[in-house]
Amino acid sequence: MTQTVDILLTNAHVLTMDEKLTQYESGAVAIHGSTIVAVGHEVEIKKDYVAKETFDCGGKALMPGLVNAHTHVPMTLLRGIADDLRLDVWLQGYMWPVEREFVSPDFVRLGTQIACAELIKTGVTTFNDMYFFEEDVAKATADAGLRAVCGQSVLKFPTSDAPSYEDGIERARDYIKRWKGHDLIVPSIAPHAPYTTTAEMLKETADLAKEFDVPLHTHLAETFFEVENMRNEQGMPVIPYVKKQGLFEAKVIAAHCVHVDTGEIRTMKNYNVGVSHNPSSNLKLASGFAPVTKMLEVGLNVGIGTDGPASNNDLDMFEEVRLASFVAKAASNDPTSVPAQTALSMATRLGAQALHIGHLTGSLVAGRRADLILVDLSPIHNAPKFRRDPNNTYAQIVYASKSTDVSDVMVNGKWLMRERELLTLNESELLYQANQVAKRIDSFLIDREQSVLSKLIALGGSIEEESYEVQIKVQAVDPARVKEGLERPEIEIIRARHYDQHDTYFFFDDPNQGRIRYREDEFLDEQGRVTMTRPRLTLVGVKREGAFAHEVMLSRSRFLAPATQTLRFYREYFKPAREVELHKDRLRWLIKYKDTEFFVNLDNMEEPALGHFLEIKARTWSRNDAQRKAALVTELLGLLGAQGLQAVTEDYIELALD
Amino acid sequence: MTQTVDILLTNAHVLTMDEKLTQYESGAVAIHGSTIVAVGHEVEIKKDYVAKETFDCGGKALMPGLVNAHTHVPMTLLRGIADDLRLDVWLQGYMWPVEREFVSPDFVRLGTQIACAELIKTGVTTFNDMYFFEEDVAKATADAGLRAVCGQSVLKFPTSDAPSYEDGIERARDYIKRWKGHDLIVPSIAPHAPYTTTAEMLKETADLAKEFDVPLHTHLAETFFEVENMRNEQGMPVIPYVKKQGLFEAKVIAAHCVHVDTGEIRTMKNYNVGVSHNPSSNLKLASGFAPVTKMLEVGLNVGIGTDGPASNNDLDMFEEVRLASFVAKAASNDPTSVPAQTALSMATRLGAQALHIGHLTGSLVAGRRADLILVDLSPIHNAPKFRRDPNNTYAQIVYASKSTDVSDVMVNGKWLMRERELLTLNESELLYQANQVAKRIDSFLIDREQSVLSKLIALGGSIEEESYEVQIKVQAVDPARVKEGLERPEIEIIRARHYDQHDTYFFFDDPNQGRIRYREDEFLDEQGRVTMTRPRLTLVGVKREGAFAHEVMLSRSRFLAPATQTLRFYREYFKPAREVELHKDRLRWLIKYKDTEFFVNLDNMEEPALGHFLEIKARTWSRNDAQRKAALVTELLGLLGAQGLQAVTEDYIELALD
Repeated sequence: MTQTVDILLTNAHVLTMDEKLTQYESGAVAIHGSTIVAVGHEVEIKKDYVAKETFDCGGKALMPGLVNAHTHVPMTLLRGIADDLRLDVWLQGYMWPVEREFVSPDFVRLGTQIACAELIKTGVTTFNDMYFFEEDVAKATADAGLRAVCGQSVLKFPTSDAPSYEDGIERARDYIKRWKGHDLIVPSIAPHAPYTTTAEMLKETADLAKEFDVPLHTHLAETFFEVENMRNEQGMPVIPYVKKQGLFEAKVIAAHCVHVDTGEIRTMKNYNVGVSHNPSSNLKLASGFAPVTKMLEVGLNVGIGTDGPASNNDLDMFEEVRLASFVAKAASNDPTSVPAQTALSMATRLGAQALHIGHLTGSLVAGRRADLILVDLSPIHNAPKFRRDPNNTYAQIVYASKSTDVSDVMVNGKWLMRERELLTLNESELLYQANQVAKRIDSFLIDREQSVLSKLIALGGSIEEESYEVQIKVQAVDPARVKEGLERPEIEIIRARHYDQHDTYFFFDDPNQGRIRYREDEFLDEQGRVTMTRPRLTLVGVKREGAFAHEVMLSRSRFLAPATQTLRFYREYFKPAREVELHKDRLRWLIKYKDTEFFVNLDNMEEPALGHFLEIKARTWSRNDAQRKAALVTELLGLLGAQGLQAVTEDYIELALD
Repeated sequence: MTQTVDILLTNAHVLTMDEKLTQYESGAVAIHGSTIVAVGHEVEIKKDYVAKETFDCGGKALMPGLVNAHTHVPMTLLRGIADDLRLDVWLQGYMWPVEREFVSPDFVRLGTQIACAELIKTGVTTFNDMYFFEEDVAKATADAGLRAVCGQSVLKFPTSDAPSYEDGIERARDYIKRWKGHDLIVPSIAPHAPYTTTAEMLKETADLAKEFDVPLHTHLAETFFEVENMRNEQGMPVIPYVKKQGLFEAKVIAAHCVHVDTGEIRTMKNYNVGVSHNPSSNLKLASGFAPVTKMLEVGLNVGIGTDGPASNNDLDMFEEVRLASFVAKAASNDPTSVPAQTALSMATRLGAQALHIGHLTGSLVAGRRADLILVDLSPIHNAPKFRRDPNNTYAQIVYASKSTDVSDVMVNGKWLMRERELLTLNESELLYQANQVAKRIDSFLIDREQSVLSKLIALGGSIEEESYEVQIKVQAVDPARVKEGLERPEIEIIRARHYDQHDTYFFFDDPNQGRIRYREDEFLDEQGRVTMTRPRLTLVGVKREGAFAHEVMLSRSRFLAPATQTLRFYREYFKPAREVELHKDRLRWLIKYKDTEFFVNLDNMEEPALGHFLEIKARTWSRNDAQRKAALVTELLGLLGAQGLQAVTEDYIELALD
């Protein structure tokens, strides 16, 4: 009895990439609808199946499509805007400003379409994404016919698609609800990384992922500094920290995991955390060498990813697979580490398992979806062909094939490329649109090259973008009453400082450039002697972001850097149109009130002589949090005897200029 | 006044890759004969030149062809025969046996043609080679129309093309004499590496290179073990050692240089040593990370090479350039290290300078040869194009271009590829022939898989191929006279040992398999107490290579490994047809006579009881050296009172079986 199916793929060297690495040198695959019905020797398959369409593979290798386990596909539109830079300069000088200015649903859709064209042409049938407006990524991907896990990003900073993290989570929930169960798209939530989220956000996103049973995609332990900062701030490295927040209760896909030890690898194994290893990105950004050999030994599902095309700069998984093998050998000082068959398993079956969709794709096994590619192993750059060892074929693919040797691509039973012709996307139209966007980005960056911020960034050093703050300032306070108030039992004083603060402001002709503030804090001891001087350089914006009751403000971000040069140097470098100097005496306390930390500044403005001011500030990451803190600030004003005093919304420099 | 030239290349984005990295976005190049006449803005060039043929480059990047600074092109025929193995297993189990069996002028020619096809298709116009029968490499390369520095290998071992190193040097001299001054080929001499040559050979090859003013190509400091061994044997690392032999008096091209320190880099700079950095090979063989950033900082000419296609496994310089940048960033922990423009300079101008032919090729400058390629930067995997920074174009090429984006290739003013069609080679014919060779190699290796040697190699450990030895054995000696003789003033005793030697020989049904000898040396102190036991496993061949006067023999190589398992294990593993045991008492001296080292064994064969024997042995590397040592051995026989005694040409085991 023969069974009728839609398509028979015949005359193929079938690499199933199943756990036993079964191969059929004269193999065939039977497909019905979106599903693989049978895989085996051609003579056997032909006995059991007849097909509406028979496709002769011409002796090419027929294998599962590759799985790109970590990327940010819309960033094709940022490919090559800036390279060979330090991470801080690259992010703060280029990526973030351009994303803030340009990222929109349209941008995301076009970037995704370009990525899909590139992915199909290089043999990828599934990818795992994380970006903004992820629903538009999902739409464009489904239209192109590719399979993807699409993760809506959530960050503690305002983003292009969410003014606060609560908005981000709402956006993610809506999106996941609507896309859950789609034939090609697995929606997911993507808390960006431990250092760009709060502990609370990690808990909330893990809960959401569990509620809908969808994967959770995040970046973990990418750089040495990330792990060191976590140790300093939380007393533990990244993996135990996120475990403590319950992150691993969800089906996690963790990108990078460069700086993890064997114990942490075992923890990840216990929680079935999938890992995406991203060798090009880790090399190009000098992040380090992930312990891939150890991860595989422990039994983790380790896939391979390209990371975003802005830090790679392409989506070529053939390059990535080769590099995964090479880098593992070099890093473990063992040329037998990650042999070709293992590297190719990582790019297929293990990758799909890392994304928690191994039941759908990643190997040519009856019951899985028909996600497959044909690879021509006969070009001159891959000659000759040895057959002594079955692993010779994996070595051919991993060490000598090029992505351009992929001739045909099928996803979910549907052809997306035939003989290198794309069937679902219009390349020339996409190229035209991409170059229009590039022109606009070029102009934006060329204009910005003139800016004070760019010049600040160009100086280098560890420039930080300051977070949002809730703050209030009142004038004409009574210093004695403030000090008395701080002794109340409700207030715990964590730290007290005293300094002489000398500020020099640089003004520019274009007020949109903001102002540079060069500040010297002279730390004073109890006898009023200077114990230390700390110079800092800050670019101060002019806008205010929002206001709460009682003139509590939400202040805007600004850029801060340690000042490693002299005031004279900065004067010559920034060429300000004008300068103003300020001098004040500042008593500064870090306090805890109702389990919340605040900074309290008691300032005596000496130059110009404006009298005493009280400032209360707190960092904040979300709308709700800011509201709660604004209420606490108002209470604190009362405790410090400053209720009813005149609130001031201007910076000292503005008061000085008035 | 306009000048008439042969070809004008117009409408190109010209990347000259000169020292200033001059670009012409609407550029043109004028070519007459084999030479670049002018490079500049198209409007300027068109004012000054008219051409017989004008070629519109369609806005593609026009740049110098890439320089592959280190490879072994005939090894395309060994691409993928064995991968993911330890270096010793790979070399001794696969590469060397296959090369011994298959390498011939025909093999070399076919392998070179395949390589040339691949090189042209991936944008390489010049390569630097080292192999056997190098004149055949040169012929095939010149026929294909590529430029190359072709180095005739010289080793201290017998090779496919030279039974001794003197033959190798003669072969090199003849070849260099005939090819010196060729339009495309620069002949060179290639002493393989310090560990495969003698000090004398390094001197001789440097002298030959100086005599003909040709480059000298060698491998230096590739692995940590190479450098450590050199320290142990010579008391200094590799670079000072070769410098001491006068190697750097020649125009040296040094491949790898992975394990060199800053002082050694400065030494190389002082002698204008060119370096080929080979990132894929260094990663795949786990050799380490070359200090490329430091080399460039010191000002060395560092090119980029693929190494042979058996350890890569391709000749794709686009992959190599990208990797050179990536690996430098990761190894120096600095993402600004080796930016795109530097990596591309290494693959063009610096590479040509490293080969000491920077005056001929590597940059598009008037007066240089017309060696150039067109690269299409418009495919979807390279979209969009940013123009803000001139380095954007280098980043496009290095980080996102594929070798298949090369559309046209010209060498020496002659087109070798137009729109991806090869003009000088027949790809399908080459593919057919390559696969015929692969079939024969497959059969050879499948047969060999059955062999005892393969099984020995499969055990792993540091298996060594023993070198050639000059040796004599005489029987019925008088032990007292030998001991007396050793006290003569002409003989210096360097070391004396005494042991009980227990040998177990495994015999196999097929005598061509050789025999396995399991030997336990029990080291005895002066009181005859065992102080240490050393088990060793040896595969003993049956053939003898040659004989000198007085029955002095040149013995054949054999394989030696420390025996880390028990005799019982080996018995089960090798399944011998039969076993024989031998037992002797051995006194062994390392002596120096007439400035030459010899081993002297005074053996008392106890089981079977065959009496006293005297053996005198010396390692040798060359025909002349062997002759000289054979004469000294005869003199020693006299000094030790053994002149006129019966010489024995059989091994003890053969005597035991008689």
